[in-house]
Amino acid sequence: MKDLKKSMTMKDVAHLAGVGLGTVSRVVNGYNVKESTLKKVQDAIEELNYQPDEYARGLKTNRSNTIAIILPTIWHPFFSEFAYHVEKNLSKKNYKLFICNVESDASTEIEYIEMLKNNKVDGIIGITYSDIDNYISSNLPFVSIDRHFSEKVPYVTSDNFAGGQLAAQELIKRGCKNLAYIGGENIYRNETDFRKDGFFQVAEERGCSLSKLILPEPIDDLEVKIKNFLIENPSIDGIFAVNDFMALRIMKIMGELSKVAPKDYQIIGFDGLKTAVDQDYLLSSIKQPTDLLAKEAVKSLLDLINGLEPKSRQVLPVEFVEGGTTR
Amino acid sequence: MKDLKKSMTMKDVAHLAGVGLGTVSRVVNGYNVKESTLKKVQDAIEELNYQPDEYARGLKTNRSNTIAIILPTIWHPFFSEFAYHVEKNLSKKNYKLFICNVESDASTEIEYIEMLKNNKVDGIIGITYSDIDNYISSNLPFVSIDRHFSEKVPYVTSDNFAGGQLAAQELIKRGCKNLAYIGGENIYRNETDFRKDGFFQVAEERGCSLSKLILPEPIDDLEVKIKNFLIENPSIDGIFAVNDFMALRIMKIMGELSKVAPKDYQIIGFDGLKTAVDQDYLLSSIKQPTDLLAKEAVKSLLDLINGLEPKSRQVLPVEFVEGGTTR
Repeated sequence: MKDLKKSMTMKDVAHLAGVGLGTVSRVVNGYNVKESTLKKVQDAIEELNYQPDEYARGLKTNRSNTIAIILPTIWHPFFSEFAYHVEKNLSKKNYKLFICNVESDASTEIEYIEMLKNNKVDGIIGITYSDIDNYISSNLPFVSIDRHFSEKVPYVTSDNFAGGQLAAQELIKRGCKNLAYIGGENIYRNETDFRKDGFFQVAEERGCSLSKLILPEPIDDLEVKIKNFLIENPSIDGIFAVNDFMALRIMKIMGELSKVAPKDYQIIGFDGLKTAVDQDYLLSSIKQPTDLLAKEAVKSLLDLINGLEPKSRQVLPVEFVEGGTTR
Repeated sequence: MKDLKKSMTMKDVAHLAGVGLGTVSRVVNGYNVKESTLKKVQDAIEELNYQPDEYARGLKTNRSNTIAIILPTIWHPFFSEFAYHVEKNLSKKNYKLFICNVESDASTEIEYIEMLKNNKVDGIIGITYSDIDNYISSNLPFVSIDRHFSEKVPYVTSDNFAGGQLAAQELIKRGCKNLAYIGGENIYRNETDFRKDGFFQVAEERGCSLSKLILPEPIDDLEVKIKNFLIENPSIDGIFAVNDFMALRIMKIMGELSKVAPKDYQIIGFDGLKTAVDQDYLLSSIKQPTDLLAKEAVKSLLDLINGLEPKSRQVLPVEFVEGGTTR
């Protein structure tokens, strides 16, 4: 004899209540719905004796309870910090995390997207600069960090524009008069481009002298180009670098020119890198809210998996952190 | 009708050939066996028309093609570098990698070991200092890094003793006369303890003055203890720290005492940390062969999964790397 209790699905509940699957999912997962709708769904659940268990909730019944994270490389403090927080958030929800270093090999990403289509993973969080638009434009549970694919792919990012503004404000507040920006530029426009936009806006508004070194990626002879730029602009006293690793390289070259921060110039990076949870910041920086980025990415992804509509774009606040390269 | 070709297992081959499963596995995976045995197995394979495919090889037929890595935390450059290499090696063999931060919560580790027993993962690589001996003493595919559990658990480690010797030799070669060792000590003796043993041996052999600060873990007031030790021993000119992060802390405290490396003293850490693949070493250090540790750990684990016997202990060579804190 068929076990009715076990065979009842969310679909049966939706059918009986005359509502969509998403609505049932909202009720089951404790989200707000109209009171009249709530009653219809609750009645149907009771009539059918439908019992969602922790693992079988949502639209998809064939769950693996695994998520994949696609990263350029785990061997980088920003990505390992992010993965650390993603795993912590997922672990609370009983999900396991696959890790995938792509290192600019898009075939690995596509392989994971295939796993997603075959229900071998339930969702993907991707930090990727590859040309995979065609693969993720469908309705798969995919959340992007820092890059906008299409309206269907929710993405989570730091407030890069405000970060650039903040960098300029902090340098000016600390007495810098001759500002400079140094960073690369990818052919795919992404969120990090807003950093320089915010920096330029404040620098111009405040009437500072402003030098720019914007290098198209991939960058050849990076250190030579930075060195020439610094030699040609000897009066620079406040630098904003597109990220912390770029800032560290600039500091190395400044050292070759016998200039030391924060005595001879001040410099602010972006990311707020530490090498580990209990370590100091590598340098003064605009800190990305890595823990919050991870939390919101996980939340959006679980919403997608459960048939809910997460916000399509979330921009999270950044802050300035003192790391010894500003006065 | 039953499809004979498909239903034939390695067990059937072993039975017909009158050999053990491990022997059939060795033949199937191309390892050396006695010529007379090889013939018996090949005959049985032919007679049964047994066809091992890439995914169904080995003793276990219920493969998930996933491996889990258990780490204290992925947010630490040594562990993220190691995980990076493990994923690269596994990816070549078509395995996916689960990542698990344990952060001294042994229940997470035990959960993964349960997954292993239930064939949800095929094997585990563990860097763990928890009390999980009772859980992994069985015949599960588990490879340990840096810690010896029992004869049944193969482990892979760096040559910590030689690393300690090397640190002493390099400091002495560079003119240090008054050596010091600073490190913690865990209640579970592990491979890292050999670092100080090697260091002490060379220091004593060469008749150097030697100061020791050995702190039982967990360590309270670490920086106060280090500072007092350095004040009490002002003639120290060569320090070996148990790892790079400890060395960075010592350097910070030396800075408070107005001493800068390598001008006023020299210091060597252990691990050879970089913050990312294309970055410089954080300081002069004894570098662990992280890529090789990962490669051998993966190899041993896949051997175990395929019913072969890997070496029970592998000790891999270390090297000295210049990172600006030695002359």
